[in-house]
Amino acid sequence: MTNPLPPGSTIGILGGGQLGRMLSVAAARLGLKTHIFEPGANPPAGQVADRVTTAGYDDLTALSAFAQSVDVITYEFENIPTEALDHLEALRPIHPNRKALATSQDRCVEKQFLQGLGLNVAPFAQIDTLDDLTAALATIGTPAILKTRRFGYDGKGQVKIDDIAEAKTAFAALNGAPAVLEGFVTFEREVSVIAARNQNGEVSCYDPGENVHLSGILHTTTVPAQLTLAQQTDAVILAGRILNTLDYVGVMGVELFVTATGLIVNEIAPRVHNSGHWTQNGCLIDQFEQHIRAVAGWPLGDGQRHSDVVMTNLIGDDAYSKGANIGLHLYGKDIAKPGRKMGHENRISPISK
Amino acid sequence: MTNPLPPGSTIGILGGGQLGRMLSVAAARLGLKTHIFEPGANPPAGQVADRVTTAGYDDLTALSAFAQSVDVITYEFENIPTEALDHLEALRPIHPNRKALATSQDRCVEKQFLQGLGLNVAPFAQIDTLDDLTAALATIGTPAILKTRRFGYDGKGQVKIDDIAEAKTAFAALNGAPAVLEGFVTFEREVSVIAARNQNGEVSCYDPGENVHLSGILHTTTVPAQLTLAQQTDAVILAGRILNTLDYVGVMGVELFVTATGLIVNEIAPRVHNSGHWTQNGCLIDQFEQHIRAVAGWPLGDGQRHSDVVMTNLIGDDAYSKGANIGLHLYGKDIAKPGRKMGHENRISPISK
Repeated sequence: MTNPLPPGSTIGILGGGQLGRMLSVAAARLGLKTHIFEPGANPPAGQVADRVTTAGYDDLTALSAFAQSVDVITYEFENIPTEALDHLEALRPIHPNRKALATSQDRCVEKQFLQGLGLNVAPFAQIDTLDDLTAALATIGTPAILKTRRFGYDGKGQVKIDDIAEAKTAFAALNGAPAVLEGFVTFEREVSVIAARNQNGEVSCYDPGENVHLSGILHTTTVPAQLTLAQQTDAVILAGRILNTLDYVGVMGVELFVTATGLIVNEIAPRVHNSGHWTQNGCLIDQFEQHIRAVAGWPLGDGQRHSDVVMTNLIGDDAYSKGANIGLHLYGKDIAKPGRKMGHENRISPISK
Repeated sequence: MTNPLPPGSTIGILGGGQLGRMLSVAAARLGLKTHIFEPGANPPAGQVADRVTTAGYDDLTALSAFAQSVDVITYEFENIPTEALDHLEALRPIHPNRKALATSQDRCVEKQFLQGLGLNVAPFAQIDTLDDLTAALATIGTPAILKTRRFGYDGKGQVKIDDIAEAKTAFAALNGAPAVLEGFVTFEREVSVIAARNQNGEVSCYDPGENVHLSGILHTTTVPAQLTLAQQTDAVILAGRILNTLDYVGVMGVELFVTATGLIVNEIAPRVHNSGHWTQNGCLIDQFEQHIRAVAGWPLGDGQRHSDVVMTNLIGDDAYSKGANIGLHLYGKDIAKPGRKMGHENRISPISK
């Protein structure tokens, strides 16, 4: 590797939620420290990180001090203000890079990028005005989904349109935010590939997982996914193409629809991903360590699966099992709000294929 | 369970070395916080713990504040001063209990305890004077090992005696510390059982691992150990008997010699154990989480092994592999002194039996 960070180095992480928490734990395993930057008080990651800075993304003094205290910067969520990134990037390397972040921050840019690679995406149209929406509905048809181009997650910032007559109400619901209309895809199943690429361009993908959502939030990921060998190969190859094209360093979540006519890319996330949490109990090296290895300039680890896994998210006040046979992961959050991710469970069994 | 600690509770850990560090990480996985008490500055566990108190074991004010900030107290090493424990125990429960600690702190008391259970130990004699030593050597024979009764670890505080003529030099080498003479055991192999017991009296043992030492320090643990089914069963049953008799709560390492005439108990350690580090990459629930579950009043997790493992300690400036196929664990220690444990590697392979 060009410049692998030695043990004792510090990884700066933007965002102090559960993903930052699990990244911190993975870094600690490798003898690396983490420094969390997070505007909110008492972030879950703070309980396991070496340092925490509590400051806003507009606090340039805090951002500078943070950057100067770390060796490399990464992030656990994609909606980081551009000005903060500009400021940080002048001081320390940021992985994954700005291009990956800019591409995935905007649903319209993302889909154009994926189409440019020759990959299939749902039919879509950029929506800036009500006229755009009416015209797009005429082409794409209903049902369709109107989504904000930015800042959406877990089903937020989305309106389903079942009839063209709902166009005006739907458009108003987004409060003038730049949007994209997506055609509805009839799919057999949704899968995701957790892919990693390091600074030498080595790519490693975990076995695809099969996802089930409830109320727009990931409910379970099951590995192995029900895929033909051809579908599995396709999924891994297209993920590799995305990472290589972006000169990507780190872990990416690639969500795919499996349809009768092939795989359709739903969205990409330039970070560790909820649908990759199964790797914590199914693989020697999990997605969090893989991400840390990549951003630290290390060789990737072995992502081989040793067990089958069903990962179940614990949302709000979902009961969790203190019982046996389950790898339990709780995030250290004080208050269990409805819809809030509080933890997850990995139920493992001997490998079936 | 009687009183399982809810997520968000804090486990106090006496000692901030690598064992405290890995206990902290395991606690974090369950949504529990840790508070480390450690006299030395910048302990490895401090990088991942929620809080650290840097103070001596004679600082009663610091001990009180520590105890009052936690829900339960455990420890990562057995040589904690009795006065500190007396002070802490008045404020918060300590697991494993004082009896287990007192038994394992003193090699002579430990051997008497094990003999009292009907278990085999090496021939031994209590040595307070040179006359005791001369008499014991006449009975036990040479080679034999003279060991301090307390504060020994990794081969420290030990002198091998090959000839009765060496008695005086050997006795002098221990500087008058209370000692025990142990007969030399000819063994086929050394194995250890990592056993856990929770507050309801449930016992769970990991598969025995086979240990190889270099210069008195654990070098590798290999799982599965080369044992007959009868030996494996014996090992697990005797470990269970030790834990039950002590009304033990937590994880214990039980080191055994495998001889032609059966198993001999070498020593017990009332804490997570170096020879159990393989569980981090070989089992759904590792020894650190098992210990945390026990002291937190939770049900024990599933200690079933999903892979074969060879654990190798990284000592001093041993090279470590950043490569694939290996679960790497580094302890965040700044300086690689000779003989210092810096990390370990777990190489896994599909399960063989």
